[in-house]
Amino acid sequence: SRNGYPEIIYGESKTAEQTAAIIEKLIQKHGRAMATRMSPEKAEEVLALHPNGAYKENSRLLIYGEPAVLYNGKIIIVSAGTSDLPVAEEAEWTAKWLGCETEIIHDVGVAGIDRLLSYRDVLQEASVVITVAGMEGALPSVVCGLVKRPVIAVPTSVGYGAHFDGLTPLLSMLSSCSSGMSVVNIDNGFGAAYQAAMILKLASEGASS
Amino acid sequence: SRNGYPEIIYGESKTAEQTAAIIEKLIQKHGRAMATRMSPEKAEEVLALHPNGAYKENSRLLIYGEPAVLYNGKIIIVSAGTSDLPVAEEAEWTAKWLGCETEIIHDVGVAGIDRLLSYRDVLQEASVVITVAGMEGALPSVVCGLVKRPVIAVPTSVGYGAHFDGLTPLLSMLSSCSSGMSVVNIDNGFGAAYQAAMILKLASEGASS
Amino acid sequence: SRNGYPEIIYGESKTAEQTAAIIEKLIQKHGRAMATRMSPEKAEEVLALHPNGAYKENSRLLIYGEPAVLYNGKIIIVSAGTSDLPVAEEAEWTAKWLGCETEIIHDVGVAGIDRLLSYRDVLQEASVVITVAGMEGALPSVVCGLVKRPVIAVPTSVGYGAHFDGLTPLLSMLSSCSSGMSVVNIDNGFGAAYQAAMILKLASEGASS
Amino acid sequence: SRNGYPEIIYGESKTAEQTAAIIEKLIQKHGRAMATRMSPEKAEEVLALHPNGAYKENSRLLIYGEPAVLYNGKIIIVSAGTSDLPVAEEAEWTAKWLGCETEIIHDVGVAGIDRLLSYRDVLQEASVVITVAGMEGALPSVVCGLVKRPVIAVPTSVGYGAHFDGLTPLLSMLSSCSSGMSVVNIDNGFGAAYQAAMILKLASEGASS
Amino acid sequence: SRNGYPEIIYGESKTAEQTAAIIEKLIQKHGRAMATRMSPEKAEEVLALHPNGAYKENSRLLIYGEPAVLYNGKIIIVSAGTSDLPVAEEAEWTAKWLGCETEIIHDVGVAGIDRLLSYRDVLQEASVVITVAGMEGALPSVVCGLVKRPVIAVPTSVGYGAHFDGLTPLLSMLSSCSSGMSVVNIDNGFGAAYQAAMILKLASEGASS
Amino acid sequence: SRNGYPEIIYGESKTAEQTAAIIEKLIQKHGRAMATRMSPEKAEEVLALHPNGAYKENSRLLIYGEPAVLYNGKIIIVSAGTSDLPVAEEAEWTAKWLGCETEIIHDVGVAGIDRLLSYRDVLQEASVVITVAGMEGALPSVVCGLVKRPVIAVPTSVGYGAHFDGLTPLLSMLSSCSSGMSVVNIDNGFGAAYQAAMILKLASEGASS
Amino acid sequence: SRNGYPEIIYGESKTAEQTAAIIEKLIQKHGRAMATRMSPEKAEEVLALHPNGAYKENSRLLIYGEPAVLYNGKIIIVSAGTSDLPVAEEAEWTAKWLGCETEIIHDVGVAGIDRLLSYRDVLQEASVVITVAGMEGALPSVVCGLVKRPVIAVPTSVGYGAHFDGLTPLLSMLSSCSSGMSVVNIDNGFGAAYQAAMILKLASEGASS
Amino acid sequence: SRNGYPEIIYGESKTAEQTAAIIEKLIQKHGRAMATRMSPEKAEEVLALHPNGAYKENSRLLIYGEPAVLYNGKIIIVSAGTSDLPVAEEAEWTAKWLGCETEIIHDVGVAGIDRLLSYRDVLQEASVVITVAGMEGALPSVVCGLVKRPVIAVPTSVGYGAHFDGLTPLLSMLSSCSSGMSVVNIDNGFGAAYQAAMILKLASEGASS
Ligand SMILES: Nc1ncnc2c1ncn2[C@@H]1O[C@H](COP(=O)(O)O)[C@@H](O)[C@H]1O
Ligand SMILES: Nc1ncnc2c1ncn2[C@@H]1O[C@H](COP(=O)(O)O)[C@@H](O)[C@H]1O
Ligand SMILES: Nc1ncnc2c1ncn2[C@@H]1O[C@H](COP(=O)(O)O)[C@@H](O)[C@H]1O
Ligand SMILES: Nc1ncnc2c1ncn2[C@@H]1O[C@H](COP(=O)(O)O)[C@@H](O)[C@H]1O
Ligand SMILES: [Mg+2]
Ligand SMILES: [Mg+2]
Ligand SMILES: [Mg+2]
Ligand SMILES: [Mg+2]
Ligand SMILES: [Mg+2]
Ligand SMILES: [Mg+2]
Ligand SMILES: [Mg+2]
Ligand SMILES: [Mg+2]
Repeated sequence: SRNGYPEIIYGESKTAEQTAAIIEKLIQKHGRAMATRMSPEKAEEVLALHPNGAYKENSRLLIYGEPAVLYNGKIIIVSAGTSDLPVAEEAEWTAKWLGCETEIIHDVGVAGIDRLLSYRDVLQEASVVITVAGMEGALPSVVCGLVKRPVIAVPTSVGYGAHFDGLTPLLSMLSSCSSGMSVVNIDNGFGAAYQAAMILKLASEGASS
Repeated sequence: SRNGYPEIIYGESKTAEQTAAIIEKLIQKHGRAMATRMSPEKAEEVLALHPNGAYKENSRLLIYGEPAVLYNGKIIIVSAGTSDLPVAEEAEWTAKWLGCETEIIHDVGVAGIDRLLSYRDVLQEASVVITVAGMEGALPSVVCGLVKRPVIAVPTSVGYGAHFDGLTPLLSMLSSCSSGMSVVNIDNGFGAAYQAAMILKLASEGASS
Repeated sequence: SRNGYPEIIYGESKTAEQTAAIIEKLIQKHGRAMATRMSPEKAEEVLALHPNGAYKENSRLLIYGEPAVLYNGKIIIVSAGTSDLPVAEEAEWTAKWLGCETEIIHDVGVAGIDRLLSYRDVLQEASVVITVAGMEGALPSVVCGLVKRPVIAVPTSVGYGAHFDGLTPLLSMLSSCSSGMSVVNIDNGFGAAYQAAMILKLASEGASS
Repeated sequence: SRNGYPEIIYGESKTAEQTAAIIEKLIQKHGRAMATRMSPEKAEEVLALHPNGAYKENSRLLIYGEPAVLYNGKIIIVSAGTSDLPVAEEAEWTAKWLGCETEIIHDVGVAGIDRLLSYRDVLQEASVVITVAGMEGALPSVVCGLVKRPVIAVPTSVGYGAHFDGLTPLLSMLSSCSSGMSVVNIDNGFGAAYQAAMILKLASEGASS
Repeated sequence: SRNGYPEIIYGESKTAEQTAAIIEKLIQKHGRAMATRMSPEKAEEVLALHPNGAYKENSRLLIYGEPAVLYNGKIIIVSAGTSDLPVAEEAEWTAKWLGCETEIIHDVGVAGIDRLLSYRDVLQEASVVITVAGMEGALPSVVCGLVKRPVIAVPTSVGYGAHFDGLTPLLSMLSSCSSGMSVVNIDNGFGAAYQAAMILKLASEGASS
Repeated sequence: SRNGYPEIIYGESKTAEQTAAIIEKLIQKHGRAMATRMSPEKAEEVLALHPNGAYKENSRLLIYGEPAVLYNGKIIIVSAGTSDLPVAEEAEWTAKWLGCETEIIHDVGVAGIDRLLSYRDVLQEASVVITVAGMEGALPSVVCGLVKRPVIAVPTSVGYGAHFDGLTPLLSMLSSCSSGMSVVNIDNGFGAAYQAAMILKLASEGASS
Repeated sequence: SRNGYPEIIYGESKTAEQTAAIIEKLIQKHGRAMATRMSPEKAEEVLALHPNGAYKENSRLLIYGEPAVLYNGKIIIVSAGTSDLPVAEEAEWTAKWLGCETEIIHDVGVAGIDRLLSYRDVLQEASVVITVAGMEGALPSVVCGLVKRPVIAVPTSVGYGAHFDGLTPLLSMLSSCSSGMSVVNIDNGFGAAYQAAMILKLASEGASS
Repeated sequence: SRNGYPEIIYGESKTAEQTAAIIEKLIQKHGRAMATRMSPEKAEEVLALHPNGAYKENSRLLIYGEPAVLYNGKIIIVSAGTSDLPVAEEAEWTAKWLGCETEIIHDVGVAGIDRLLSYRDVLQEASVVITVAGMEGALPSVVCGLVKRPVIAVPTSVGYGAHFDGLTPLLSMLSSCSSGMSVVNIDNGFGAAYQAAMILKLASEGASS
């Protein structure tokens, strides 16, 4: 609203009926809608009622419609391991839906630093970088040292034991010694993409003082 | 370096001698330097050796030199209570030193929502908003709903009991239902300002795709 | 007992037989009974034995009988998001069963503060306000600043990641900078309603000193 | 304001100058003021500037002026051990300043239940009961079962080891099996008294529906 | 062994085959055996191989054989709510199997203190008291103040929200202000009974110095 | 009282005046008194008023008078490292004051198991064993496997880092795979001795059923 | 790579297709592959595509191929209880696959110290010892005191209540008073074996300075 | 002893007298001694009694005597930031005292990955690598991917806020996606060096199978 976007639905703890009703209202008002954290079953129920949407199975997004405006710049999403891809894709599809160009670089964990470094030049093309990592969450600290643009870090729930469902990479990202980065909630690819889109929007519209 | 800035010194657990030595090297190379989390005693020792700096007592910053470039846009720093001011000022001085225009709105806690709302128009002038809040950390959720620009949230250690030295506002900011915001470490006004400056830099230099 | 009410059954970890037996005893003694946190299956089993009750599916309450006395005043239950409704309804039905008039205002999260503010006048009609919120739990701090009556805050388990099943809004509500509010356990709509009813009872019977 | 009271100052992390300035403003506007969590040194500094106040050393309150209105009813404050007295007194003086009659029953820990039970009749005279307890925090569960009026529980930081500075009684009070009680932050005698006063105010003004 | 008892099997994470094999060995050597935390399915499989045992469904114990010696004295097991009965029964059957007389007093939560106090005389007959309580875990503090014999406290996982699966009553029991009590692990009725039996054994055999 | 002993004063958060007043009352009534967790300064102040007491500097106990009755049996206190001695001595002096014979075996950590095993025979003379250990808290598990009498485990705050001021040995003692032991609060040598004394009292008076 | 080994696949949160694809690539390049934390269903799917592997059901490893080199020395894996065997076997099979000789000593918990001590001589034959223990995690402290070689400790998730899924033995192992040991993640038999193999590799290749 | 070394004294919570007495005994028996975590004041007191020692102020070690044997191989200690040096030096001096050659590489945090990578060849000369890092603790994951030798990770208490005195790097190191590394307690440079020395000892003496 305040920024021209329809509110995005948090699907996790809504029934299919509740979700479908909100989608209907949003499409009527904005011509499009998006819901996050939708289980396949719930998505199917909603799609039966509103068939024009697309369900992204990995990222559990349910998407209706296209962005009206496309922003300048590109968001690069860097993902540590194959297991982090669902969250990376939540960020990717959210950003696209909000009008941003995106690119994913995946499987570049810090344990094999050379693979990550081989993308050093590619990374310079980003206007904003989103890093997605579980386990120890070291990726954004390294990436942030390689680029001159804002970095948004997303910890994931990929890991076990002392990982505590993502608490560990969350805390390690918040304690990072790299400057220029900020953090969103565990598995919150959506939130990272949303802020990245706000940044591209600003860069596209220009900052006046 | 990668972004043209001299590295900023984390002063907390360095001796005065160590800090002074790094400052010397940075000034030789970049003409200026900055150290965070400096106690008054340590700052005094360093200033005795390098007298051209300024010590900001509230925010515990030790600053040498001026920014070479000034960015377009303005960072508005919104602070919940009087007790959060030191962190807000850490953000303010860091942003200034990095070449950004800043403005502080203070004492606008959510318990008296009308005071905050009276700044609604002023807030629209921000290119980036930094919110600084201790206690329950509710401020960024409300502010983020009022503006169309990126919001960076800084939890502070102001509070007691179930506040756990800032853990509570940290977690609440990460769990916010407002989209478009991200979070930095407890009391990390520096980190918020750094990312905000990166955003203004991008907006000033332009995002190309 | 000490307050004239039959004890209310905590259904969560009782078998259907145990629950039915206690209900029987309570109905014999008090003419009515109520059980909280009843799964649909358990409720069905109990209703097969004691068919005069009503099962509230969302709030998982099983209810027998009506209140003998109605108190003056009204409890307004304010709910942040659609997902918080089951807890809000637990509060609503508990309060009604205890003899209170209730009203629910729902989907008024702090991220869209104007929607909440549009109820400012309505809120003044409350004798007690119960706020129900998950995520960051910021709602009661704002509401408490808008009314002159006691506010009881109920954190919910709606959220993910750094939300820790409701721990985050629980801690944030306890750390609130608004005065005049108190807090009950996560998802404890029942407990909030019970205390609210005790307050209406006092206000109806009068406080003498 | 919304309830006619001047805002009460959180003194913990303000300087003496900041506190004195706010007190001045409040006295000009409301004729009186109160600050919580004031160290003796800070209080002395403030009193040097504004000598008409009273400093309550145990409870660390700094108080100026008298209540304009006195409410019907009485708040009874029940304190588990001698060590909990400072918090009990914070509740007592806050309630008095807000216009309530108060009474303290002290040293009635649950380990010696007969001492507590000897006050059973006295407790019935309360309109609201505030219970203050550290250690395992069992007191409010027992008291709440003895009275028919609302109970507000205050956990204290009195204890050691597995007590975690009050976390343990906080969690145990929130998990209480007694109905009709709610909880405030650790050592927050002020907050309990504030809500208790709101309840007496309602009972004095009457609840209409 | 050192105390004449066969080792008792921790059944939780063993397969039925592993459990059956150990039971066989124990029966050959000691004439009897006992396994804790056995699911109904696993118990059935073991009983198919060794049919002379008895499965206690509530307490999930699988028991073979009788104690050779009976000790003097009596263990009274006091249980706060109906939901705590499975743990209370784990204590009961373990104690019996170890050669102790037992008695259960149940549903005597502290919220209705008079029901507990009606057992005051009965409690004096105990040589050791085991208290079993979930929720806030206040029961042992009160009971310990009523008797002159050792009290062993067992926290249970009965509760929700701020109860954290028994962590809260565990911590509150450890922080108790009653002296003469000690604590065992959450839901560990077995461990409490084992120590209680060791105490009766000592009292029966006599302590010499 | 219920067990014939005067209440023991928790000295930590009482003033010297408060402590002295309670001591006076207890001596008048019981002829003796004891206070725990007394700082040297506070003890000195109290001793100035009541000079007949003895202050045990290591264990911070202030003791007046002798036990009237001596029990049969012996309490052996086993201490892991030199740093755990203050807690071991709190147990020792408390037990003596309550009428028990005691013996300390010290510096027998599990890292050098042979030293501990050289006391195997001595340990069999105990009626009750109290084990005192910080660091990983492994000592009671081993000791409990060596004796046939009840073992009470006291975790201490000796350690650093992942030790969290005693939380780690507390949790590890509660999770012990040895049966026959129970646990008291961190550094609570007093509580362990109290329960041990209750056990000797029972063994001395005899358990009848 | 850097050490000549193919990367080992973390199977937990990959699909069968993703796992099979990586296995294919690794076999092409290295002639062999290994995946950890594979469920039986996933393993079956992968084996249908690549039938030359072996699935180790207890330890959930999927293994293809043999080591090219065998190192000098022997890794002894010491396991506290039957329930810890799956983790011990994960260490065993990993070490074998990496070219190490292994031996398992099992069911030697510290509660029956004599059984462990009967292996004292056997333990001296180890070049590296891996200890695997759940519950209180005391085993490595004792073992480390018995041998002169490096000890790697693996906490397991075997336990309940205050054990917190392995957090307790993890913290207790980190706080151990035995010197010469280090710790890996909860249930991480793989990681312990990997480091042990690196140590044998060094000892086989020789350390030059 | 079992490995020929004198026990090393944990100085933190011993008095100067206790420490001096143990040092005397150790020197008599082994000709040398070492104490960790000694404050300057305590060290001075001990040195007054036993003047032949050396106090390492940064690392708080008190050292007497030289190693009898020198091992083959070299331990490289890699330290993330200047603030981590005291812990790195604790590792360095401990390793030297135990008979190992050492080298420190310092100030190579992952935020400036090129500085670390410039030591890639130097790192290959290590037989064992010890990494010392606070903040997010990402260093060992990267280093472990660069070398073929065992890596021991030491988290430090350098950091603030979400760093929780070293808990965050501890957990992140335990959750590392790099294989071949293990972890010791927060700030435990001593423990890392001890295990590293055991590894060099093995490599020097040879592993036979
Ligand atoms: N996956 C998500 N994580 C965090 N916030 C979300 C998510 N999905 C939607 N939201 C936000 O949740 C709010 C909508 O919540 P609701 O009204 O409950 O649907 C909007 O502000 C969204 O931007
Ligand atoms: N959902 C609930 N949350 C907290 N307390 C409850 C709940 N439902 C019932 N109770 C209380 O639990 C007690 C009854 O417990 P029980 O005897 O176990 O049925 C009564 O004091 C009730 O008021
Ligand atoms: N160090 C201690 N730890 C735990 N409880 C204690 C301690 N010292 C005294 N107590 C108990 O605290 C109660 C007295 O508390 P108070 O009335 O505050 O002095 C008595 O029940 C004592 O048995
Ligand atoms: N800084 C340290 N961290 C961990 N363990 C240590 C430390 N210093 C000494 N130790 C160990 O502590 C034990 C000696 O403890 P103590 O008998 O209390 O001096 C020995 O096993 C040492 O190896
Ligand atoms: Mg990979
Ligand atoms: Mg204010
Ligand atoms: Mg909404
Ligand atoms: Mg008392
Ligand atoms: Mg009941
Ligand atoms: Mg020792
Ligand atoms: Mg066994
Ligand atoms: Mg640096």
